[in-house]
Amino acid sequence: MNHHRFFIEPSQIDEGRVTIRGPQARQICTVLRLQFGNEITVLDGSGCCHITRLSSTSPREVVGEITYTIQMDNELPVRLTLAQALAKGDKVEMVVQKATELGICDMIVFVCSRAIPIPLEDRIERKLARWRSIAREAAEQSGRGSIPTIEGAISFDDLLTRVPQYDVALIASETGTNMLLRQALETVKQGASVIYIVGPEGGYTDNEMEIAVKSGAVPVSLGKRILRTETAAVAGCAIIAHHVEC
Amino acid sequence: MNHHRFFIEPSQIDEGRVTIRGPQARQICTVLRLQFGNEITVLDGSGCCHITRLSSTSPREVVGEITYTIQMDNELPVRLTLAQALAKGDKVEMVVQKATELGICDMIVFVCSRAIPIPLEDRIERKLARWRSIAREAAEQSGRGSIPTIEGAISFDDLLTRVPQYDVALIASETGTNMLLRQALETVKQGASVIYIVGPEGGYTDNEMEIAVKSGAVPVSLGKRILRTETAAVAGCAIIAHHVEC
Repeated sequence: MNHHRFFIEPSQIDEGRVTIRGPQARQICTVLRLQFGNEITVLDGSGCCHITRLSSTSPREVVGEITYTIQMDNELPVRLTLAQALAKGDKVEMVVQKATELGICDMIVFVCSRAIPIPLEDRIERKLARWRSIAREAAEQSGRGSIPTIEGAISFDDLLTRVPQYDVALIASETGTNMLLRQALETVKQGASVIYIVGPEGGYTDNEMEIAVKSGAVPVSLGKRILRTETAAVAGCAIIAHHVEC
Repeated sequence: MNHHRFFIEPSQIDEGRVTIRGPQARQICTVLRLQFGNEITVLDGSGCCHITRLSSTSPREVVGEITYTIQMDNELPVRLTLAQALAKGDKVEMVVQKATELGICDMIVFVCSRAIPIPLEDRIERKLARWRSIAREAAEQSGRGSIPTIEGAISFDDLLTRVPQYDVALIASETGTNMLLRQALETVKQGASVIYIVGPEGGYTDNEMEIAVKSGAVPVSLGKRILRTETAAVAGCAIIAHHVEC
């Protein structure tokens, strides 16, 4: 089971035969130097894991035959969405990678008053493409059966209109004497949808936090120390994932 | 209390007067442009937090008078040591920063069979200096009253000889059906010393894990997914800190 893992589209499988082209074919053939008879693991994004024996390899096209298929069971027992405020530098990239390893299903990037502004349309498209590529690699590396979706950047108002769709909505907060994150998790049931919202470096305005609470988001504390935004994201996902895992 | 925070040596305080020289003086005067009458927070590493009003500032020397002193209460109720295998690139730097925010007291960097080799003496000294500087900055930024110690790189054998000194010793493991980290935390008492050991990217050899267990380290799982070494470090510290915090 320690094969190299590749996510593919279900349409790349036809009657037990897998066809891989593009960068993945180049990686298999040129970088990993896999050959006829070697095995890889192919993931179709539905949680199915296909052990595949290569029958022909070239940098343009790799073909293999599925030898057996198993249903993976590596997902969290809740559907966890991370909402992360846009942040400087490569912080969001780090969060995408770590949160994927930790088991999130979806990620929403948002902007609010004290977050860095939404980049120009073409730049956010490039960023999204980069984040999705990181999520795919992290899902492959961590042995997950599906790749988290990534969406954004949306406004804080838009984010809050979605809060009622979730069974549980938590917003990381440093102010006041909020309940600890783990206390808020005590009532979470298997199969629940959970959104965890992490604000920008500069925090929220009072008004933003007020409307978040009115929307149904519960402010939670991660402890006494002040965490950077990316630390609050990764630490929160780790605590939630670990709490809900059987 | 949203002053800029600076760790200093206790010897820099004399009869309520604080004297700061070197890079911190340059930062206060030239970068932050603080002046006569502005306030900073000075931390002496013992958990004491001194609110200090500046009486004179120059890039070479900043002097201030302590207006009042409070005892901070931001530390974890256990003494948490993170033992992290040496890893490539800037992974250890990231771990130092995040683990400091999350409340560790001590960090030990170690090498084992599948870790990258110990760098030459002068390189490890430079790395240690860099890690200590990151820990100091992270402690200032996260509002901690003390700076974690950082030591290394020591051998895995040396690390294991120290395991019996701790009340609780946990080693992150991906193999087998280990107990979950949070189950291992159930018996941890306030004031206990806890060491959490995170291995290299390539994992341990069977022999290494065997002698670790013989030394008293308890293998724990962080969940079903495969985590990178730096993710296991940050996630584990987050889970432990959150579990023990009142």
